[in-house]
Amino acid sequence: MKYELYYWPGLQGRGEFARLVMEDAGADYVDVAREKGGMPKLMAALERGLDGVIPFAPPFLRAGKVVVAQTANITRFLGERLGLAPAGEHDRFLASTIALTIADLVTEVHDTHHPITPEKAYESQKAAAKKRAKAFRDERIPKFTEWLENLLKKNGKVLAGRRISYADLSAFQVISGLDYAFPHAMARRKRNLKRLYALRDRVAERPRLAAYLASTRRVPFNETGIFRHYPELDSR
Amino acid sequence: MKYELYYWPGLQGRGEFARLVMEDAGADYVDVAREKGGMPKLMAALERGLDGVIPFAPPFLRAGKVVVAQTANITRFLGERLGLAPAGEHDRFLASTIALTIADLVTEVHDTHHPITPEKAYESQKAAAKKRAKAFRDERIPKFTEWLENLLKKNGKVLAGRRISYADLSAFQVISGLDYAFPHAMARRKRNLKRLYALRDRVAERPRLAAYLASTRRVPFNETGIFRHYPELDSR
Repeated sequence: MKYELYYWPGLQGRGEFARLVMEDAGADYVDVAREKGGMPKLMAALERGLDGVIPFAPPFLRAGKVVVAQTANITRFLGERLGLAPAGEHDRFLASTIALTIADLVTEVHDTHHPITPEKAYESQKAAAKKRAKAFRDERIPKFTEWLENLLKKNGKVLAGRRISYADLSAFQVISGLDYAFPHAMARRKRNLKRLYALRDRVAERPRLAAYLASTRRVPFNETGIFRHYPELDSR
Repeated sequence: MKYELYYWPGLQGRGEFARLVMEDAGADYVDVAREKGGMPKLMAALERGLDGVIPFAPPFLRAGKVVVAQTANITRFLGERLGLAPAGEHDRFLASTIALTIADLVTEVHDTHHPITPEKAYESQKAAAKKRAKAFRDERIPKFTEWLENLLKKNGKVLAGRRISYADLSAFQVISGLDYAFPHAMARRKRNLKRLYALRDRVAERPRLAAYLASTRRVPFNETGIFRHYPELDSR
């Protein structure tokens, strides 16, 4: 099975959560819009649909006859197919709950630089962004990250089940992104998040992921993605 | 199987999406925090967890040994168990994608009155709310609702598969909520959304749902929920 990932080129964004699962599993996939002549394919899928499904927004994935959109839906689908999901109904739903909660956190990260509308540039909404980013740093980062830390405290070395799953890969990505976007705010949280940072490091050291992270396939974090480092939105 | 729904009493909120699936299916469920002595049970679950899972936020559902959180995760779980989900992998993922996209829309509705932080009252963020609500009315309501309308145009009378599913019940709820919160803005959109409003009406007429909607179990929309009618956030 060759998977086709449809996502904007030039940024990690939400597509990265899907890439990490496929890279860690060694899956055969094509990152459609990053191929030569790929952008028109992405635009055509957004305008006319894929197999009768017009996704609301990238990322979306084609796997044979199935088209899946929504980040946490894609990572669950891939994780369950590729051996990166827990066994057992309880833990399968726990992994899915975690991935969806991380997706909510990602939306809140996005809204720190787009608090008024996603349809206009950051520069047009800087005043509100400053306020939203402060509330995010002070109230929401602690709430989300300590929730993940507590899950690890209860469950052990991974968030759900007994082995690394797509939920852990998603946690790696969100912590890496928060470190990039809010280095000062995260430096102050770090000592309360020992288990979460240890998990992040264990994920980064997995051989296939380490190779991926060192490759040119991993787009560096930048200010067109979800995780943007605007010094005025962080705090010393 | 007796389902236990954990959600705040006194508002529809995100819990309503789960209630609609159980009501339409005639499932046996208890709305924990609305029972006598139920609030302490909800608070204990939020503090100490349920079966080893501490949910990030309500709603969450206990179904025997499984605990499921996240609205679209709960409705999918219930829909697939209770005969309110499409058959076939393609349509199952389409329904899930739709429910998750509606959950994103619901988050954007919430942020019209809480654009800076969910942790503080609307009254503390009214100026930003006015701006966010305008962008939401002008750009986001059309984008989301026309996406749903187009899905109906492609698929027929229901959003996914051949029969009413949890995705359609979720569409009913979000359109009802938008009508309550933004009556003027929605009145202007309505003629572009004929299929979607027809679906909403067909859902409302389903015998079990019609009985539910007329009962005291259906909490009226109000200004403590997600869909709030603040005239200053709508437009004539």
